[in-house]
Amino acid sequence: MKHGSLTDLSRLCIHTITTKPLDIETAIDKYAALGVSGITVWRDAYGKFKPRQIGEMIRKSGIEPVSLCRGGFFPSVTRSNREAAIADNIAAIEEANEMGMPLIVLVCGADPGQSPETSRDQIRDGIEAILPRAAELNVKLAIEPLHPVYADTRSAVNTMKQANDMAGYFNSPWLGVAVDVYHVWWDEDLQSEIIRCGQANRLFAFHVCDWKVPATDILLDRGIMGEGCIDIRRIRQWVNQAGFNGFNEVEIFSEIHWKTNQDEYLKRIIEAYRLYV
Amino acid sequence: MKHGSLTDLSRLCIHTITTKPLDIETAIDKYAALGVSGITVWRDAYGKFKPRQIGEMIRKSGIEPVSLCRGGFFPSVTRSNREAAIADNIAAIEEANEMGMPLIVLVCGADPGQSPETSRDQIRDGIEAILPRAAELNVKLAIEPLHPVYADTRSAVNTMKQANDMAGYFNSPWLGVAVDVYHVWWDEDLQSEIIRCGQANRLFAFHVCDWKVPATDILLDRGIMGEGCIDIRRIRQWVNQAGFNGFNEVEIFSEIHWKTNQDEYLKRIIEAYRLYV
Repeated sequence: MKHGSLTDLSRLCIHTITTKPLDIETAIDKYAALGVSGITVWRDAYGKFKPRQIGEMIRKSGIEPVSLCRGGFFPSVTRSNREAAIADNIAAIEEANEMGMPLIVLVCGADPGQSPETSRDQIRDGIEAILPRAAELNVKLAIEPLHPVYADTRSAVNTMKQANDMAGYFNSPWLGVAVDVYHVWWDEDLQSEIIRCGQANRLFAFHVCDWKVPATDILLDRGIMGEGCIDIRRIRQWVNQAGFNGFNEVEIFSEIHWKTNQDEYLKRIIEAYRLYV
Repeated sequence: MKHGSLTDLSRLCIHTITTKPLDIETAIDKYAALGVSGITVWRDAYGKFKPRQIGEMIRKSGIEPVSLCRGGFFPSVTRSNREAAIADNIAAIEEANEMGMPLIVLVCGADPGQSPETSRDQIRDGIEAILPRAAELNVKLAIEPLHPVYADTRSAVNTMKQANDMAGYFNSPWLGVAVDVYHVWWDEDLQSEIIRCGQANRLFAFHVCDWKVPATDILLDRGIMGEGCIDIRRIRQWVNQAGFNGFNEVEIFSEIHWKTNQDEYLKRIIEAYRLYV
């Protein structure tokens, strides 16, 4: 695998959520036609298909299966919700296995009715509960630290340091970290924690999009690379220096871009990928 | 001064921005009538009055002047903007002196056209340029770390650790830190950095409001204490344990509450203060 050069699309992966209006068959076809090399499938994109069928479609297309999004959301003030989350994560691991996905991204979760520490304890318990099944089915798990703006309901793991600490606690070859520039770009410890993550062989995934200034919505107005203020290339180079040579995954949530012609949008993504990633 | 007990309002300060619809005279009158003990004046609240006149109004009311909001916004990609920011901060220091305000809160600023490190370098340069004038006029400066959601345009100082480091770099009795629960509640190092701040005698101010779940707007939908997910009392106790015995300042930006009857709203604030701070 190549390290830094993005003169071609051999390291470009796109998340199905990025082109949310497209059904899974159409997304796979269009990505393949444009020379996109990898795909991350979101669980809301299955439509009428079973995970196994989607896996077959991906293999036929020649695109590499990269990850399944997403597991996690472990914390809750109620025990029954926490148990349901663990069951759902086990289901996700089985789906990934059926689809041939080597990795699941974990958005760890948080419950605003309790402290962040309690949520992190429950995240640890959740990972502990699902990690054996992940190992058994050869599916890796990647903790994605989320921007602190989501600390109330989406994740109590908000920095690379916290994600590294959590992964280090388990010290399992099946558990690592997913770096998403949107969530971590502001962190003064980002470079050192990326290096730490790579040295422990835990840097499992790298996601890109951009932080628009201003954004109309903190969740659903993410930018195409170059539309915002993140120095994506610098972070991508840190990630590569840390030993990561996997895919650069384009994951954009955007009510604005979802309303546009998805063919044009995919072309813009590919242009932006060459210019800014 | 009392440490932890909030059975009375002797440590309650309100920011004029909290009751934005009220002009400065009305705000002072209403705060005094309700037994509020301190006031922080925002520079947009002067109306027809000069800082010196506002200072006289505050002294007559018997309310204690707590701080002037705000200085800062030092970084810019253009030198002329940076020079203008320094001039404006010098003006703020002189206004604080005229008003009898012992402290200015610094929202340090950030420019999305450059890296956060460059913005922090320019913040350091800005503070260096204004600190002598602050010392000369007996006006303290408090760096307020802002939530990372504002790292693009409002502040490249996003954690208590960064604020402590910045203040420590200057090691001046005129430069400290303002802790606002809204900005720092999510941080796993919050308690230890509050203690570090207090031990260095740099904990100059403490602001409260709440983080609503969900919020309609990330800037202008802050909650009254108790309306959100922050364990304000726990943080207030950490601040007191760190040696802080100044005011608990209620600073709420809220398009929702600004539209309500401000007398009712002030009563709700006082109730919430007793219950949650």
